[in-house]
Amino acid sequence: MSDDLDTETTWLSPEELELARSRLPTVYVDAVPVRVDALGVVTHVGLLLRAMPDGTISRAVVSGRVLFGERIRDALIRHIEKDLGPLALPQLPPSPAPFTIVEYFPDPTVSGFHDPRQHAVSLAYLVPIDGDADPNHDALELAWLTPGEANSPEVRAEMTGGHDRLLRLALAHAGVLP
Amino acid sequence: MSDDLDTETTWLSPEELELARSRLPTVYVDAVPVRVDALGVVTHVGLLLRAMPDGTISRAVVSGRVLFGERIRDALIRHIEKDLGPLALPQLPPSPAPFTIVEYFPDPTVSGFHDPRQHAVSLAYLVPIDGDADPNHDALELAWLTPGEANSPEVRAEMTGGHDRLLRLALAHAGVLP
Amino acid sequence: MSDDLDTETTWLSPEELELARSRLPTVYVDAVPVRVDALGVVTHVGLLLRAMPDGTISRAVVSGRVLFGERIRDALIRHIEKDLGPLALPQLPPSPAPFTIVEYFPDPTVSGFHDPRQHAVSLAYLVPIDGDADPNHDALELAWLTPGEANSPEVRAEMTGGHDRLLRLALAHAGVLP
Amino acid sequence: MSDDLDTETTWLSPEELELARSRLPTVYVDAVPVRVDALGVVTHVGLLLRAMPDGTISRAVVSGRVLFGERIRDALIRHIEKDLGPLALPQLPPSPAPFTIVEYFPDPTVSGFHDPRQHAVSLAYLVPIDGDADPNHDALELAWLTPGEANSPEVRAEMTGGHDRLLRLALAHAGVLP
Repeated sequence: MSDDLDTETTWLSPEELELARSRLPTVYVDAVPVRVDALGVVTHVGLLLRAMPDGTISRAVVSGRVLFGERIRDALIRHIEKDLGPLALPQLPPSPAPFTIVEYFPDPTVSGFHDPRQHAVSLAYLVPIDGDADPNHDALELAWLTPGEANSPEVRAEMTGGHDRLLRLALAHAGVLP
Repeated sequence: MSDDLDTETTWLSPEELELARSRLPTVYVDAVPVRVDALGVVTHVGLLLRAMPDGTISRAVVSGRVLFGERIRDALIRHIEKDLGPLALPQLPPSPAPFTIVEYFPDPTVSGFHDPRQHAVSLAYLVPIDGDADPNHDALELAWLTPGEANSPEVRAEMTGGHDRLLRLALAHAGVLP
Repeated sequence: MSDDLDTETTWLSPEELELARSRLPTVYVDAVPVRVDALGVVTHVGLLLRAMPDGTISRAVVSGRVLFGERIRDALIRHIEKDLGPLALPQLPPSPAPFTIVEYFPDPTVSGFHDPRQHAVSLAYLVPIDGDADPNHDALELAWLTPGEANSPEVRAEMTGGHDRLLRLALAHAGVLP
Repeated sequence: MSDDLDTETTWLSPEELELARSRLPTVYVDAVPVRVDALGVVTHVGLLLRAMPDGTISRAVVSGRVLFGERIRDALIRHIEKDLGPLALPQLPPSPAPFTIVEYFPDPTVSGFHDPRQHAVSLAYLVPIDGDADPNHDALELAWLTPGEANSPEVRAEMTGGHDRLLRLALAHAGVLP
């Protein structure tokens, strides 16, 4: 969720980005990385431990904004590679439809999804990871958890901004919510 | 697709809106209005005849941007009421997931979906209309066509910006693409 | 989930139906009845208190088999009317795709969804109910619960055969799983 | 669509299978094999040239019934391996929800999907193929076609039973219907 790289690419100064974010909703993507078995059943979900927009160090899924002129699929690959490394081999779904839409608001009471910096509309995808995930950049750690572990009260308590709910919607979409 | 009302609501001057649109992707919604029978089968699709961003008068579905702070569902209702009137009684789907994502670009060759004014990422929904649709505002006419009529070469030739393709994706999602 | 009516309609004797069920998977539909607000957001879910295949009296969603020659939409309407009465005004979704597939097995350990009588493959739909639901037939009671109430440990403990999991998948699909 | 292998596996004699099929709908799966690029975009669709239930030699997608006690995912893998060989490496989607439901009837006028032998309810999936497809069994040939080629009048004229419509729904779901 760092904006450094994004800012460079679109020639928006930090001030301009801040101004735009106070006036228009931002287009985001959320990618829930999963491991699947030979039959396509989700066996593990990948959670990053990282610095969040609210200042906490929390568990989270891959998340970031879409740049001007950038295709959704390119944004997904870019953010997944930034967080999981270049050898992750993400398998983007053939359909462009996200499994759900997440609406992040500066006011946490509006939708239950919270981003203090902006109103972001995020397209959420489940993304099987075939290769080796090696978190770099500002992601501090990556843990592969079973659906039961990921949905446990302990892990959910380590997530902020509504990412615990997003994770549950993803597990339900895959039919593996306990 | 007029921006007059939108601009007022968000206190963005036309110049500011134009600037923002040249720097960030815009969040859009597309609503394909349909009539359904007692079993939920789509029998007709509603096409507006209206002024399009490319300067043509074309057939199109309901389309417009999401305002800062606005929920997706509120934007859908607002644009549907603007185009179909207050008595349309749109039945928004219970799931927040759109049936497809449409990526409009100033360059028509990028995705096949074209908006000369902006890069817009649009969430597309199929919306059954239960009431009386009475196009007001800048929509010149509304026609209810059968799936076969809507997919005919004649009607498709009257659509621009990729709305003919969007219409076909909507009919396919409903299982009624001829 | 009574088979009396079904048997009459298809001229299968109870013995023949039992034999067929021991050899072939049965096609089923599950309908999760919901109340939605003016924006389409699910506010309540309808749970029946009824006799289940496993002999318990449990809370459950609308469920039943598809007859030979019967369309999926006709089966949905038939079972919903049987359980919620003729004035329920169910709004079947325009898309034929179910939000999930439930695989019921005689062995409860195979998928977590259990029907001691048969292997049933069920197409699950979320169905907004616009009218007055008046449970008749063998449904003993209908309760409209908020998503939070329906997902509470108390209510989940009153469900068998995996219907509590199905309910959670339905709430997640609608974006209202707490 | 040969029943030889299926019959062995479930100990239903051909007469018993025929009887059951005249009384109960059969559970089917349809798998549309696709090639995707590094971004997940469908570039080609795989069409088999094979003997169809109606006696023609036609182009078709992978299709077959689900056995008693068999999971949907196992049936998909079994039919894909039977038609595309053991090295196809099919990537089943993480979600159990099919992208559409196909209702085949002995009467071709009921739904437009036709199987003279039975009423079959089929769950249809888009399945990326990562490996080498080598049609064996009774599939005579496999051709990888671009979406434009697959949707051409010539190729569509080589499909029967509604498989041309199913193919178009699959291309639309993937956002690549021309």
